[in-house]
Formats: sequence, C-alpha cells, structure tokens
Amino acid sequence: MDSQVSAFASHMAKGAPPPAARFTGFAEYYFIGGNNDPTQIPTEMLAKAAETVIKRDGHLIAIYNMGLGPLGYPPLRKFVADKMQRHRGVTADAANILITTGSNQGIDLVVAAMLNPGDVVVLEEHCYSSSISRFKKSGAVIVPVKLDDDGIVMDDLARILAEQKAKGAPVKMIYTIPTIQNPTGSILPMDRRHRMVELARQFDTIIFEDECYADLIWAGGGPPALYSLAPDRVVHIGSFSKTLAPALRLGYATGDWEIIGRMAALKSDGGTGALDQMIASEYFTTYFDEHVESLTAVLKDKLDCMVEAVEAEFGTHMTLFKPKGGIFLWMKLPDAVDVRKLIAPAAKAGIVFNPGPEWSLLGDGAKSHLRLCFALNSKENIREGVAKFAKVCFEETGIPPRSRNVTNTAG
Amino acid sequence: MDSQVSAFASHMAKGAPPPAARFTGFAEYYFIGGNNDPTQIPTEMLAKAAETVIKRDGHLIAIYNMGLGPLGYPPLRKFVADKMQRHRGVTADAANILITTGSNQGIDLVVAAMLNPGDVVVLEEHCYSSSISRFKKSGAVIVPVKLDDDGIVMDDLARILAEQKAKGAPVKMIYTIPTIQNPTGSILPMDRRHRMVELARQFDTIIFEDECYADLIWAGGGPPALYSLAPDRVVHIGSFSKTLAPALRLGYATGDWEIIGRMAALKSDGGTGALDQMIASEYFTTYFDEHVESLTAVLKDKLDCMVEAVEAEFGTHMTLFKPKGGIFLWMKLPDAVDVRKLIAPAAKAGIVFNPGPEWSLLGDGAKSHLRLCFALNSKENIREGVAKFAKVCFEETGIPPRSRNVTNTAG
Repeated sequence: MDSQVSAFASHMAKGAPPPAARFTGFAEYYFIGGNNDPTQIPTEMLAKAAETVIKRDGHLIAIYNMGLGPLGYPPLRKFVADKMQRHRGVTADAANILITTGSNQGIDLVVAAMLNPGDVVVLEEHCYSSSISRFKKSGAVIVPVKLDDDGIVMDDLARILAEQKAKGAPVKMIYTIPTIQNPTGSILPMDRRHRMVELARQFDTIIFEDECYADLIWAGGGPPALYSLAPDRVVHIGSFSKTLAPALRLGYATGDWEIIGRMAALKSDGGTGALDQMIASEYFTTYFDEHVESLTAVLKDKLDCMVEAVEAEFGTHMTLFKPKGGIFLWMKLPDAVDVRKLIAPAAKAGIVFNPGPEWSLLGDGAKSHLRLCFALNSKENIREGVAKFAKVCFEETGIPPRSRNVTNTAG
Repeated sequence: MDSQVSAFASHMAKGAPPPAARFTGFAEYYFIGGNNDPTQIPTEMLAKAAETVIKRDGHLIAIYNMGLGPLGYPPLRKFVADKMQRHRGVTADAANILITTGSNQGIDLVVAAMLNPGDVVVLEEHCYSSSISRFKKSGAVIVPVKLDDDGIVMDDLARILAEQKAKGAPVKMIYTIPTIQNPTGSILPMDRRHRMVELARQFDTIIFEDECYADLIWAGGGPPALYSLAPDRVVHIGSFSKTLAPALRLGYATGDWEIIGRMAALKSDGGTGALDQMIASEYFTTYFDEHVESLTAVLKDKLDCMVEAVEAEFGTHMTLFKPKGGIFLWMKLPDAVDVRKLIAPAAKAGIVFNPGPEWSLLGDGAKSHLRLCFALNSKENIREGVAKFAKVCFEETGIPPRSRNVTNTAG
C-alpha cells in the first residue's frame, strides 16, 4: 500500500501538525490523563442497563438525535437536572440542559459562542491544560488570577476587573473550576462564591463555571454551584468522564437559553453518541449516588496512598496541595528543581507526569510544580512509581537527599 | 430562573448565531435528513451484543480511548478493514484506519489537515450540504464540476484542472462521492475511476473520497473504491450512520499515515464514544452482510413506492434521477418552478424537503431541483406526503396540472 510515495506530505495545510506518533501502549507508571479505575466500572450492571434501554428505546437510534431534538436524550437531561438539584443546589430545568460530547465540547461551544480574538478572559493561574489551549486558540487575551488554598483570591480578581475596565478592555468572562480546582484540588468557600458573583455583576462579566470533578468530593456535598447564585450570568458545564468513564464522551452544559440555545446552534457533530447517552442514563438514574459514594471511597484511599508515598519519598522537599476530591495531586519541589528536566529521565524509568508549566499560565513560574493522577493506578503501582520518581529526581538534582529515612546515593 | 435579565445576550461573539429554535417535533411528512428506518434497528440483537461486549471489555471505558490509542476500538477497525476488502476492493490495513465521531468529523479533519484559505477545491456541482458548508467555512475556493447520470464528467474535470494550473492556482483536492452520489444517487463507472486517478496524478491533486452510502447499493457491490486505485493520493471516509444508525456517531477514515496520522493528531474530541464503538463492532462483525442485505431490500421497496408516487402525482412534470442505492431521491420540476417558494406552503401542509439550492453549488441553477429522503417514512406516509406536496405545488404554480390522471383544481 505504501509502494508509491505518498502525495499527502506535499499537500498539507500550512500549520498542520506532523502525523501522530504510532501508539505503543502506556508507560508502566502512568500518572497523567483524567482516567478512572478500571476495577470500578460496573460492567455487569452496565450490561444489564444496556440490554434494558436498547430493547426499550433502541429503535430511536435510526434517527439523528434519536428524533428528540439537539439537546440530547431526555431521560439523561432529566437525570442531570435531578442530580444538580440534589448535589449542587441548582434549580435546573432539563429544557435548558444540553448534553455535550464530552465536557471539552462544552468549552469549545462556550468559546465559539462568546469570544472573538482580543476579548479579555480571566483564568485561574494554574488551570486545566486543555482549557488553556482552547482559550489560547480563540485568540482571547488571557489574564491569570491568583489562587490560594481556597481557590481564586477575590482581591486579585477585583484588581484585575478594575484595571481592565480602566484600560478600556473589560473582562468579558471569568473561567473557573471552583469545586475541585484543576490542578490544585481546592474548593471555593461560600463567601468567596458570593463575592465573585457580586464582582461579576459589578463589572458586567460572565462566569463560566466548569464542574468537571464536583461530584467527587471526599466530604460529599460542597457549597452550591456558582450557577445557583446567578443563573442569569453563569454558564455551567459538567462531565460524566470522572463519575463514570472518560471513554464515554458525555458531558453537559446548562445556563439560560441565550447561551445554551447558541451552543445548540453551534453544535455541529450531528448529536452526541446515542448508546453512550442511553446506557449512562439508564444506569445512573438508579445508581448514581451509590456509585459515586463507592468510587469516591476508592479514590480517597488511592490519594492517601499517594500522599503517604510522596511524603515518605520526598520528605520536606515536596509541598503537597492536598485535594478535597478528584483524581489528581498537585505538588511543588524546591525552586531549584525544574521539572521539565525530569521528563526525559522519568520516561526512561517508565514514569510519565504532568509538568507544572503545562497546567499553568505562569510558565517558568510553575517550573517546580507537577501533577500526578492516581485513579488509574493500583496502590502498589503508585508506591513503586513515586519511589522510582524520587530516585530519578535525586539522580538529576540531588533532591530529595533522603527517601524513607534512607540517604539516597547515586546509581 | 429567568427572573433576572440574561447577561448573555450582550456578551456574545460577533457572528454568533441566534439561539436555536426550541425543538417541537418532526413535521408529519419528514423527507429530510439522513435518517434510517426505525423498524430496521435490530434492537434484540444489539441488546445482546451490548451485553456480551460490555461484560467482556467494559472495564476498558475507564481509560480515555479505552487505553488503546487514538485510532479507535481495534475490533471495529479490523471489521472496517475486512468489510472494505470484501465489498470495496480495498486492501486496507487496520493500523491506518481511524474511527471518527461521525463521517462529518472525517470531513472536518481532512479539511483542517489539508486546506488553507485560498486553496482550490473541486466539488461536484450538486453536493451534500454539510460538505459544502464545511468547505466554505475553510475559506477554500470551490470550483464545481459537472455531473451526469454516471457522476463526474471527466472532460469537465480535465478542463478545470488544466485551467486552474494555467492560472497558477492548481487544484489541491477533488472532493467526490463516487458511489451513490449525494444527491444524485449515481455510481461512477470503472473507466471514469481510472481516468480520474490519472488526472489526479497528472495534475498532482489529492482525491478525497466520501463513501457514506456505498454499502447501500441495490445491485450489491459496485466498482471498487477510488482508494483501491491510488492509496498514495486518495483519502477515504465512510460511515455507519446509513448501514446501522445515524444517532450513533461512528464513521471511519483511511489513507496513508501522512494524512491519517495528521487527522489523528488533530482529533481533539478525547476519542469517539466507546459504547457506540463497542456495540456496533460486536454486532457488525457477525451480522453486517445479512443486515445490509435485508436493509437494502427494505429501502429499495420504499424508493419504488416513492418513484411510483412522484410519477403518478407529477407525471412528466418531474424529472427523476433514480438512485442506484441509498436513502434519497433527487428530482427536478420544470424551470418555471422555484422550489424555494414552496418551502413555506409545504411546511404549512406538514411537508419538509431539501430545496435544490441547499444541495448544490449552482444556486439559482438548482432552483427547480429538490431532494426527498424516504428511509424514515412508511410507504403510506410517502404516498400521502407526495400527494400533498403535488397539491401544494399545483396551488402555488399550476404544476402539475393533473395528478393520478385527475385534473387538479384549486382549493
């Protein structure tokens, strides 16, 4: 088939990427990606849900959008509305819920509906890398706002909003992950939520609330979504990738019809996959709460394992930002360490991780930070991987000098 | 929830569309959209396939792309390779097959990988409306090539290629639907396929082959895909929307790695929905041939019903382009009739159809053409709808003067 030389290489668009590398499997210690725990997929119950829903509604797949309109499978939208009411304090209306093909599509649609090049957007200084790249691609001007252990520092947000207004370049949108921030894992307290909505009203700014991880909180609950406080100026997205499975491409968006109706008009994918929608809906309508409770316990146990391992291996040389839920741990090495220099030797040892600068707007300012995901990995894999990573780090930088109370030595 | 005035209306991007209209259900005589026949969805067997595959591979959904790389579920890619070999004369390699989230995503990815604004693309003069809009959006310069009852007129293609070359604006890509052309339903004969590949080589042009409907041929088989003749310069896409169901978002693309690898690099949707992939794969690996044979017979029967109805209602006032497969019928009223003027009165009578100008690059030159889809509709609905459409047409234009051998009268 490749006997003749490809004509394609000479016909590509300017700016097209090189061909993807051939997939050769995962690294042994795979600490990246929003993956879940394969042992927590309820295959028997999903199989049963699939059987039931396909026998009942399977004929609908003959028609685009199941013949039910572009917002998605109505029972799934009703489930999302119920879930948001019970867990996120939101009086949601299924008529204003749009099922998206993953929550990244929700980001794409909000960006497409709202942003022109040059519009000013505030992002959290450390932020989900796919969001950063999507906002950058839009041509928006991105202004980072400071984070502390409780999320956005409101005085810094107020400063930015005032300065941008004074400059004649008002902030059009604040994008935030207030509940299990990515990557820091913080939860914005209620008083800051109220302040943030006040500021948004004062400066006539939209809030784009991303609640990708909000269903996975250790303590359960969490303060109500920003959307519940200001449905007139908050657009809210969520995901099933973290509560059920990322290989299903299922997320949702809600807001008033001025935004959701435009997102629906811009959604050009011919609908979100019907069987993914139907099966998730059938299963979660009955089992969501118990599924999430059980999953969260498993995740918390893995986090505890990872925290123990990092503290034992790195001691005081690693600052941990212990997350209040979710599937990842954000941390910082001493300023002397540039984690970008660890990427290659770590890969050689079978370890992949997220270097800080990819999850931050601060560039060099996040050079000592890194993110490790733990949901996919077994506890044994976590312990081994963190130990090997400490060894790589020591060999490259001399840090940490001791691991598990033993002095590190070269070789 | 809408007690406060929405802040969104004043914050939208320049050029954002208005909010979508609220969905209120389908028209009674719904002759648009690439929908299938709900009675032909094998719900029992899909339910069984779902149960089997979820029990076996369901745990994989915990990981993005099922942990198997960005090209898609390997058993589905193997099925596509086998099917293309058996039915389309293609020696395909599953390693070069990319599963796409619907074949429209395949179009988006080829366009993104290959076209910059100003690049010259040849499209068939009557063409799938979503393709037209996607190419227009890319900023490419679109040159229409003539069609006859057998597809692209090769002398016209040769003329365009030579003229564009002489102008210093060579054709970068020919986009074609050679096997069940949309909307004309033609099949490009073998000699023209060879000629087209020769021309593409002579003028160093890429061929983008869209085989969305090629599995639904009345006579079975059909000449081999263009891709089989020139794998070095043809990129090929196909779909499961027509053979199985459009509410699953499943298509595929194949070509050499220079193009497929770039499409994989550009595919930013986090993977194609896993359950849609798994279930389609499990069912089709065993039942594809018998499913398609049975479905095609049902579709042919509906087409015959529609042809009978149109001929009886419109007589010699409608020219039919009888398709060699697929799910739609392209036709033409006398030049005096502008079908765009029939849209509103037809809608009032519960009828929706595709006006020619939406399915053509000729604008006013297709004003008397229209496309009617028949797969979704029962034969009774087809007969009633065509009769009502003839009545609307007569009332608006005086054409047809007689229907089913009875003189039409107003009111």
